[in-house]
Amino acid sequence: MSTRGRNGVACEWLRGEGRDSDVVMSSRVRLARNFAGYPFLSRARREQRREILVVAQRDIMEGSLAPQMMWIDLNELPALERSVLVERHLISKQHAKGEEPRAVAISSPDERLSIMVNEEDHLRLQVIRSGLAVSEAFAQIDQADDRIESQSDYAFSAKYGYLTACPTNVGTGIRVSVMLHLPGLKISGEIEKVRRAAQGMSLAVRGFYGEGSEAVGDLFQVSNQTTLGKSERELLTVFETNIIPKVIEYERVARRSLLEKRRVILEDRAHRALGLLRSARLLKSDEAMELLSCVRLGIMTGVIEKVDPAKVNELLLTTQPAHLQKLLHRDLDQAERRIERATLVRNTLA
Amino acid sequence: MSTRGRNGVACEWLRGEGRDSDVVMSSRVRLARNFAGYPFLSRARREQRREILVVAQRDIMEGSLAPQMMWIDLNELPALERSVLVERHLISKQHAKGEEPRAVAISSPDERLSIMVNEEDHLRLQVIRSGLAVSEAFAQIDQADDRIESQSDYAFSAKYGYLTACPTNVGTGIRVSVMLHLPGLKISGEIEKVRRAAQGMSLAVRGFYGEGSEAVGDLFQVSNQTTLGKSERELLTVFETNIIPKVIEYERVARRSLLEKRRVILEDRAHRALGLLRSARLLKSDEAMELLSCVRLGIMTGVIEKVDPAKVNELLLTTQPAHLQKLLHRDLDQAERRIERATLVRNTLA
Repeated sequence: MSTRGRNGVACEWLRGEGRDSDVVMSSRVRLARNFAGYPFLSRARREQRREILVVAQRDIMEGSLAPQMMWIDLNELPALERSVLVERHLISKQHAKGEEPRAVAISSPDERLSIMVNEEDHLRLQVIRSGLAVSEAFAQIDQADDRIESQSDYAFSAKYGYLTACPTNVGTGIRVSVMLHLPGLKISGEIEKVRRAAQGMSLAVRGFYGEGSEAVGDLFQVSNQTTLGKSERELLTVFETNIIPKVIEYERVARRSLLEKRRVILEDRAHRALGLLRSARLLKSDEAMELLSCVRLGIMTGVIEKVDPAKVNELLLTTQPAHLQKLLHRDLDQAERRIERATLVRNTLA
Repeated sequence: MSTRGRNGVACEWLRGEGRDSDVVMSSRVRLARNFAGYPFLSRARREQRREILVVAQRDIMEGSLAPQMMWIDLNELPALERSVLVERHLISKQHAKGEEPRAVAISSPDERLSIMVNEEDHLRLQVIRSGLAVSEAFAQIDQADDRIESQSDYAFSAKYGYLTACPTNVGTGIRVSVMLHLPGLKISGEIEKVRRAAQGMSLAVRGFYGEGSEAVGDLFQVSNQTTLGKSERELLTVFETNIIPKVIEYERVARRSLLEKRRVILEDRAHRALGLLRSARLLKSDEAMELLSCVRLGIMTGVIEKVDPAKVNELLLTTQPAHLQKLLHRDLDQAERRIERATLVRNTLA
């Protein structure tokens, strides 16, 4: 898999397209499912895991879930390629690290739909869409889910709903998350407003790479914490008509206020960031993210012109360690990565 | 006076010419002199100060000290112009602030020779030369001194030598100082080596604007602390054959070591600095100095090409508050200066 997907398409969540894409990077819906007749993975023997893989492969690859699905046996995939998938948000870190029989299926070339097999649950379906597109993502994942269920029975309780390895996923098994770029609120110091608004609705606010990760590059993920006792529709409504539009509005107000009242400070930050990206000979990953975030804010507010936002989004991905090594076709230690990262950024933004 | 002197010449100490100018910015020699028959200024009445001014003006302007001398009555010079003279190292801050009758005479257009009248002593003669040129500076000041003495008697004691307002200047009344650019030693953390070497010879190491000033932009002044009991020749020898060549060598070794062992770090620092200078929309004076210092190091070590070092030196001066306001023909508050400073730097280094 190249950094731009099979057909030169940048990965979905970094395309910068779709509704409200000035603030919303991407929308993601995930479902946790387990096949009936097999134990949860914590209790499954290696042999049973293999059987689950076979069933899943058949259901996914023959189920017409997408025009083209790619099946990747993670036990045969080199570590670097697995890290690339993590950086593309197609598999989890745990799934990359595992040693048991496991796989991932990915719709190609768009990478919108991906299904981890034998991660925490038998199946973890995910749809990512650029911009604010929670309903669209849900519609797509719902269809994929139905097509699998038309072939195999899921573990399901009339009382609780879908049964999952972790109790927080029991019920609809759904997790919705929206990745937001909130540099305006970060500068204005109002990011806590978002956290409070989210917590009031039992939503979590996390960093770029999910649970426990720091919010580098002013990228924040808002997601639901529990799934039991709420229909999918209710949850989507919370996201699409309540929390996310509110946060988008906070961010836009913060940006407008910066433009009107502190324009020169905004220009200074954005152009310094661009200047550093175009000049540095050594770049750490987190610093690159922070600087790219400032440049993106500069583009979105119009204080930076003549820089293609798609290139900035692309660099958010290609400057990650695994993508960088993939691009250069060799292993790089940390010191080498800093040099090569700086070179890549300089050349891309020249 | 324009920022480049009357004939478009940058001020002497920032020309970047002369011996060892990769490390030595400028050499300066100063003499403290008082006319016989008049009290020291601390005890002089306003009327006596006026008389001293008249005598000094005659001796200086009719003494053929230089092809052309400019006489400036500081009581009639606007505050901004006085600050410009301070930034050009032609008068002291105290002399700029004073309210008593006082003046300065400056050789034009080269600004090498300047004579403050009624500062701490009746006369403070100064010669600045680009690069390491302590002997040349001394020869010039010695000649100017002789020409004044051929017209008026100085306060002189056969036992102590020239008498001065402050005891530390009694004797030869000479102060030698050399301004050094030591970014290599700053980065390698060896700047203390210089301080120790200097202190061992009763020399002081100070910042850019003399006593009590911080060493911004990695610019350090090495100067003698006392004048009594040592001939001019002995003092010049200490500077020219002992301390300064030693420090120059330390600095060159540090730069070579950076180039050989940490080249990418050096490149990173220098190019980041250049990138920031070319991008920032707001620049504080000290930050500008620091960044210009990094760029100068980059040029001197060859990791930055295609940037004219003369422009960098020039900016060390033109980014100072008074020069900036002089250039823009208006008063600027601090916030405005940061904007205009950034604009000037961007345009100059574009």
